[in-house]
Amino acid sequence: MNYKIILQYEGTRYDGWQRQKHTEQTIQGKLEQVLSRLAGETIEVNGAGRTDAGVHAFGQVANFHLDTELTDGELKKYLNRYLPEDVAVTGIERVPPRFHARLNACWKVYHYQIAFGEAKPVFERKLVYRVEEVLDFEKMEKAAKFLEGTHDFRAFCANKHMKKSTVRTVRRIGIQVHKKDGMASVTFTGDGFLYHMVRILMGTLLEVGMGKRRPEDMEALLESRDREQAGFTAPAQGLFLDYVSYDSRGCGTDCEYEEKEDD
Amino acid sequence: MNYKIILQYEGTRYDGWQRQKHTEQTIQGKLEQVLSRLAGETIEVNGAGRTDAGVHAFGQVANFHLDTELTDGELKKYLNRYLPEDVAVTGIERVPPRFHARLNACWKVYHYQIAFGEAKPVFERKLVYRVEEVLDFEKMEKAAKFLEGTHDFRAFCANKHMKKSTVRTVRRIGIQVHKKDGMASVTFTGDGFLYHMVRILMGTLLEVGMGKRRPEDMEALLESRDREQAGFTAPAQGLFLDYVSYDSRGCGTDCEYEEKEDD
Repeated sequence: MNYKIILQYEGTRYDGWQRQKHTEQTIQGKLEQVLSRLAGETIEVNGAGRTDAGVHAFGQVANFHLDTELTDGELKKYLNRYLPEDVAVTGIERVPPRFHARLNACWKVYHYQIAFGEAKPVFERKLVYRVEEVLDFEKMEKAAKFLEGTHDFRAFCANKHMKKSTVRTVRRIGIQVHKKDGMASVTFTGDGFLYHMVRILMGTLLEVGMGKRRPEDMEALLESRDREQAGFTAPAQGLFLDYVSYDSRGCGTDCEYEEKEDD
Repeated sequence: MNYKIILQYEGTRYDGWQRQKHTEQTIQGKLEQVLSRLAGETIEVNGAGRTDAGVHAFGQVANFHLDTELTDGELKKYLNRYLPEDVAVTGIERVPPRFHARLNACWKVYHYQIAFGEAKPVFERKLVYRVEEVLDFEKMEKAAKFLEGTHDFRAFCANKHMKKSTVRTVRRIGIQVHKKDGMASVTFTGDGFLYHMVRILMGTLLEVGMGKRRPEDMEALLESRDREQAGFTAPAQGLFLDYVSYDSRGCGTDCEYEEKEDD
């Protein structure tokens, strides 16, 4: 049976999603450990987004093949009991055998939580990126408009030796500001993101907000296809993988089995 | 100059509000350290509620006397810069010399965050008390009604040798349930709370919710004035000091200088 699960995690304590040999602190590793113990054999888990060390997930999606007598509800309960307290399964369903959480993903939504100016969020401090500057959000909005759409995002890709296409479609960059609390949320919706692409987009937009770049510079920046021209890589803290869509609407059939290199 | 400040803190890492000899990990201690360094002399801070180890604050109030050339905004910024990241000053104002954050407090609001059933709140895990049982909130509401009002709350006081009056007025116990998320919030508004009173009220209400007590048992429990008859002391995790009111409306003038023993 092929299971699709929805996951939440606080990435602070983890070395990212992907299983690695030198560390036990990965989300994939923790999941595979619990599932393999249950199954009595090695179970492999596919995640929709290979989130970096420190990146959080509100709605990561994963799939795995497992034979079990447990009902879906029991399996969810089992996973939540044995997974660490900062990782939770919030949804579970059975899917067709060929479903693959990463290869079949059509759209992903990431968001950054930003605290600016004097804001000092005590309770969310590990879920927020604090910027001491006061940001010009109107300029950031303008810059975001230049970045939306289908472009070659090579300038926003941390992998310099990327051989495959660096063309991606960013459907929308939405900025929501709560001025009173000194908090902002920047949401990135796209068909896939290159390695560190969301973080470099965020860093570049922040530099616009701080007055270090102009919104209209974004066009030349995209054209440059040069990572050196783009802004800093915003830290993992404050970044969430929100949502992964497998809906066929708005998603060409060719996307279904196209391998993407995602962050 | 006498300053009144509003404070937020996550209590997880702290041994409570009150300065103690054997530990540096108290909120009062941290504040006094930063203020005394600024002033070049010992500054004493009065907190409205002496929150227990692990209890959080959303709107703790404190006051202190300080001579400084800093504006209120600068003083707030200074405190937030030098206080740990899990303690923040969210408001500051100058008050009359005789104002005392604890002695003048008229009403206080505490609230408990509860996760029940299968809920596993990942991001708020240190701010929530998890109960695995499914709770009967209607029964808890009924029990809460018996506890509202002016009563002798000796059965809900952890200090067995309390010599002063144990009569308090609980204005309201409000229960808000988000069934879908498996989360509930229980708010306690009162003119003052005895040592551990909120935590014992919460523990008792939870025992009602689990079916171990009946709502109508609350009357006899209050009359017993016996701590042994009341429920367990709910843990500090999940408890917040929300708000302290100094408004004269609804507050007899005699409350202004009446010393109360609060948790």
